Amino acid sequence: MKDLTDGPRSLTRGECLDLMGTVKVGRVVFTEHALPAVMPVGFVLEGGDVVVCVPPASGLAAATGGAIVAFEADDLGTTGPAGWTVTVVGRARVVRDPGDPARRALAAWTSGPRPEFMRISCQRVTGRRVGPSSTGEGYEAAA
Amino acid sequence: MKDLTDGPRSLTRGECLDLMGTVKVGRVVFTEHALPAVMPVGFVLEGGDVVVCVPPASGLAAATGGAIVAFEADDLGTTGPAGWTVTVVGRARVVRDPGDPARRALAAWTSGPRPEFMRISCQRVTGRRVGPSSTGEGYEAAA
Repeated sequence: MKDLTDGPRSLTRGECLDLMGTVKVGRVVFTEHALPAVMPVGFVLEGGDVVVCVPPASGLAAATGGAIVAFEADDLGTTGPAGWTVTVVGRARVVRDPGDPARRALAAWTSGPRPEFMRISCQRVTGRRVGPSSTGEGYEAAA
Repeated sequence: MKDLTDGPRSLTRGECLDLMGTVKVGRVVFTEHALPAVMPVGFVLEGGDVVVCVPPASGLAAATGGAIVAFEADDLGTTGPAGWTVTVVGRARVVRDPGDPARRALAAWTSGPRPEFMRISCQRVTGRRVGPSSTGEGYEAAA
């Protein structure tokens, strides 16, 4: 597949990380029982990683701990092709340190006595602006 | 992993489809080179399928045609855990019929002379409401 960083509307790694910092919800994309799976999560960027709050009792940590996952965040609105999308690919690992600084930032997403968190390393970061181009060619998410 | 349909905040298939009909952007989740991958797309529900507009030159159709993919749509806002998420799992196939009725609905997403479309069969449809519960327990996307 053509790399999302191809083309004039691609974003640099720095731009991707800056844009990701403007939203609080993303989606962990992984493989479960050999099928593609996806789960929305709250997240923050901390220490060069994406840190996500694992939905309680979801089994997400068990399904993905140690595995390579994708994480996607975007702001595309809900009405048409306009905005940006960023995808991170990297290894996921369960956060076991109770003093991890990302925990506080994710407090709104936690519930119950034993919240779980995962860090996803930003090994590959790609992104694009999406929407009508200056040439009027329309959707260019991966043109 | 615990099924997203478990629990009191799960949505029926009909509710899922109704909610999906209120947004125009979703994400195709698939496997590429043995790694999880994700791509935002414009979509409509038509004839019981999710029909997506394939970003031009993205190779998405080649990567997923005939494969089982996931498709996720949500309305979670960008600021915190509130809203809904729906995931469809089913087989993807390239739309080859130039008269396919979904094409017109996706006109805003097309560009170039040969737009591509895919249908994803709604074999499995699951969803949940996400957000603070009535008991104040916070995020329950998959509790």
